[in-house]
Parts: sequence; C-alpha cells; structure tokens
Amino acid sequence: MSDGGERVGKSDDTVGKVYLVGSGPGDPDLLTVKAKRLLEEADVVLHDKLPGPEILGTIPEAKREDVGKRAGGEWTPQEYTNARMVELAREGETVVRLKGGDPTVFGRGGEEMVHLAEEGVPFELVPGITSAVAGPAVAGIPVTHRDHTSSVSFVTGHEDPTKEESAVDWAALADTGGTIVVLMGVGKLPDYTAALREAGMAPETPVALIERATWPDQRVATGTLETIVAVRDSEGIEPPAITVIGDVAGQRERVLEFLEGE
Amino acid sequence: MSDGGERVGKSDDTVGKVYLVGSGPGDPDLLTVKAKRLLEEADVVLHDKLPGPEILGTIPEAKREDVGKRAGGEWTPQEYTNARMVELAREGETVVRLKGGDPTVFGRGGEEMVHLAEEGVPFELVPGITSAVAGPAVAGIPVTHRDHTSSVSFVTGHEDPTKEESAVDWAALADTGGTIVVLMGVGKLPDYTAALREAGMAPETPVALIERATWPDQRVATGTLETIVAVRDSEGIEPPAITVIGDVAGQRERVLEFLEGE
Ligand SMILES: C[S@@+](CC[C@H](N)C(=O)[O-])C[C@H]1O[C@@H](n2cnc3c(N)ncnc32)[C@H](O)[C@@H]1O
Ligand SMILES: C[S@@+](CC[C@H](N)C(=O)[O-])C[C@H]1O[C@@H](n2cnc3c(N)ncnc32)[C@H](O)[C@@H]1O
Repeated sequence: MSDGGERVGKSDDTVGKVYLVGSGPGDPDLLTVKAKRLLEEADVVLHDKLPGPEILGTIPEAKREDVGKRAGGEWTPQEYTNARMVELAREGETVVRLKGGDPTVFGRGGEEMVHLAEEGVPFELVPGITSAVAGPAVAGIPVTHRDHTSSVSFVTGHEDPTKEESAVDWAALADTGGTIVVLMGVGKLPDYTAALREAGMAPETPVALIERATWPDQRVATGTLETIVAVRDSEGIEPPAITVIGDVAGQRERVLEFLEGE
Repeated sequence: MSDGGERVGKSDDTVGKVYLVGSGPGDPDLLTVKAKRLLEEADVVLHDKLPGPEILGTIPEAKREDVGKRAGGEWTPQEYTNARMVELAREGETVVRLKGGDPTVFGRGGEEMVHLAEEGVPFELVPGITSAVAGPAVAGIPVTHRDHTSSVSFVTGHEDPTKEESAVDWAALADTGGTIVVLMGVGKLPDYTAALREAGMAPETPVALIERATWPDQRVATGTLETIVAVRDSEGIEPPAITVIGDVAGQRERVLEFLEGE
C-alpha cells in the first residue's frame, strides 16, 4: 500500500503511526483541517460505514479498507481491527483509523488507544465533531441552554448485551434535569421513553430525532415523550439517528424559519 | 468593513447572514474546513477570547471585533453582541460569530439563534469540536468506554447566579454512574468534588484537569476525587480547563508512553 514516498508522522524507520481520527457527522466540510490532510497523506485508511458516503467517497479506493463488515456480511470483531492497525504500523505504514463523529464518544477509541499502547505502537488521537452535539445543533437545537438546563448527558440506547440490564440508569438521568441525548437509540425508543416517563419526566417534554445529520438526506422529526414513538413510525426514521430529549428540543420551532444550511 | 466584492451566503440584496461558528478547542488544525473558509470569506468576525491566540492570530485585524470585553475591562453584555450581529447583517455584511469549542455547548449559541430568528436575520449554525470531548481525548481519556460507562454528562461548574442554588443536581449526576465532565469548573472544584463524595462517589475515583487543551501550552494534571484540589493548587491549574471525573480518567496513565501530539 505504501508508495515508498515521504510519510507523515513517522516516528522511526521501522514502526509507522496510527492516527485515530474523527470524521465528524458526515459533511466533508465538517472534517477538521487536520483530518482532511491526514486522509490525503495516509498510506491506509481503516474505516466502517459511519463516516458516511460523502466523506468515504473522497478517499481513493486503493487505500481504503472497510473494517466495518466482513465479506460474508458479518460484523468484523474489534480484535480484527486492533490486530490490523498494529500489523500495518509494524510494516511502517501511516494508518488512519477513521471513525464517525469523535473516536471517543461511543466509538471504541478508548479501547483502540489502550491496545496500541500495549503493543507499543505510537498513536495520536485527532478529535472530530460528535454527532451528539452537531446533530441537534444543525437542526436548531442547542444541547445546553442557560434558561433550561445546566447539563447534558449522552447515553447509549443500545446497551452492550454483555453488561447487566441496569447499566443505564434512566431514572438518574431524568433526575439530573438536564438534556438527554441518546445515540444508537432508534430501536429501543419505546423502552427508554417509557422508562423516563416512569421516572417522572413530563409526557409533554419535547423530543427530536435527527437522522443522518449533515448528510445530504438529513431528516428531522419532532414530538414529545408521549408521541415520539408514533412519529418515528409514521416518518420511518432509521439509524443512524440522534434522539434529543428536553426543553431545548422545543427550540427548533422557534428558529426554523431563518435557519439555513439544512 | 465590506470590500464590496462577492459575499458568501448572501440571501438577498439587503440582508447579510450570520454564521454561528465553533472554533474547536484552539488548535487551528482542529478548525473545520468550513470554519476556516468562512473566517477567510467573512466581512466581520465577532469573537471573544476563548478560541485562543493561535486561531485569533490567523484572522486579519481589520475584520476582527472583540465582543468579549468592553474597553473598560467589563464583560460585554449578551445584548450588545446580539444587537451587533443584527446591525451588521442589516448592513448586508457576512458575519461570523466565532465561539470557542461548539456554539451550543455552554456557549449561548441557543440564545443567539433565537435572537436572530426573532429579528428575521438568516443564520447558519456551524458546529465545532467541543473542548468537553476533545480536551479529555487528546490527553488520552475517552469520555465513554464500553467497560466503564454507558453515559457521559457535561455540566457547568459555574452556575448562573440568577438560578436557584440547586440547579445542578450533583447527586443525580453521581447516580448516573457515567463520566462527569465539568466546564468552567476550576474555581468551584472543592465544592463539587465534595458534593460528589457526599453523594457516595468513591474518594479514589480518578479525576483529570486539562488546561488549555490543544493550545501550545496545554497542561494536564491528574488525581482522585480526594486529592485533585491539592493537585490543582500545587500545579497552579487555571481556566480555561476541563475537569473529567470517572474511571476513564485513569486511562491516561495506561497510554501516555505512546500518545503523541500533546
Ligand atoms: C457507535 S455510535 C458512534 C458515535 C460517534 N462516535 C459520534 O461521536 O458521533 C453510532 C451512533 O452515532 C449516532 N450518529 C453518528 N453519526 C450520525 C449522524 N450523522 N446523524 C445522526 N446520528 C449519528 C447514531 O446515534 C448512531 O447510532
Ligand atoms: C463558556 S464555556 C464554552 C465551552 C465551549 N462552547 C466548548 O464547546 O468547548 C467555557 C469553558 O469551556 C472550557 N474550555 C473551552 N476551551 C477549552 C480548552 N481549549 N481547554 C480546556 N478547557 C476549555 C473551559 O471549561 C471553559 O471554562
């Protein structure tokens, strides 16, 4: 894969370097200057589907490796990605491990950092814009707001099946009084909206779903804790999407007329 | 301020447009491609100090307006910034309102959106990388981790004095079991670390302080819920800094030897 030319970030003659890079939510214009440069300079880009078609389309086929799926349609185990990063680095390659959003927000960036360190491979973390902030923002929804909320929590709607059922404490999240942003939360929307209502959250609490934020086919659907499951079904909202729960989700209505760029 | 030349995003002949733009944490390489282009194309850039010296240094003096402070050293009221954005847009200018990190994470982006919409000024929200994710990440700390935490909460350590004392519910945040990331939390570190311990968080919970993340003089200090106040004082950590509380903060030690780019 290497052309034998100059390589960036090479720490010595034999071991390459791995850049754990966030792609942002999907609009190529929301790549960082650094991510864009690294994608150009890398020997190999290991990626899955989350960075989206527009960003993946800018990377030459010859250096792309999709580690998101195996040929047979199964998910690639994390062990494969870990091993491949190390293997390529030991061959002296400059590797970009490209992740949707930010690598450290439900992105296994933490595990990959530890694996690289344990194998003695130099690495750098290049942050990206997380969809958990940008998804709501481009839809006119600020995740925090002085008048409404002093905190925002990001939580997974799709709990790791190896963890105990109670790993996400929805009642405690409701008690914070802050905005709740759920990632991987399309399928289990009925479960956690019910849990939040049982925990005492008002049924009229505004909720928004932002599907494929910043992609050309972005869609936004809004409702309340009581109506959002029906809205999801009638609109046919599908992953990847962000769920925003809290008063701030009501702001979209107030700004939509003058909000551009959607 | 206008050179009469072509302007971007002009929606008609008389009203300009306001871009609410996130600068990211401070490294110019972590600006988005879009933010970089808009800074070049804007007629006027309204900013405060948080984007940091490196990014502000790239903007020509002639189009910079610091709305962070008044001449007398007092803080500019939000009303002034709001009025100035509208005034410039009505003069037909393309305005960038540049904010540190992301405009919607404790950045008043929500209020500014509503103000612009109420005044009938077209605007666009351009997300940036929030320091709440990137600060920890570049220090080797993932804010979420499959093995440790199913959620992360961002919270202000410097509560709005006009709100009730109890606006941040530290006990509920502790109960979530997730990572806690505190912004504007250097001064009140003793108060909220005490509150979290009273709420039952273990005194040995790892805590990290990341000062001026991604700036040339970035500093990181680590300790526990019990020791971090003393660490802050001996190291002299000052704002702007991020506080990360939770098991993930312990990961820095495990990866530091191979972590580059700090
Ligand atoms: C495994 S998580 C990775 C999150 C990613 N690291 C980030 O910071 O955005 C996948 C989830 O992220 C969210 N997501 C990622 N990109 C998105 C986008 N462009 N629009 C909406 N949701 C997105 C969805 O909730 C999706 O199920
Ligand atoms: C008014 S808030 C604005 C946050 C910003 N909108 C963001 O998304 O990063 C200011 C606080 O952000 C944090 N902050 C912003 N930039 C930072 C940086 N480069 N390093 C550490 N903390 C930073 C500090 O906690 C600071 O007190």
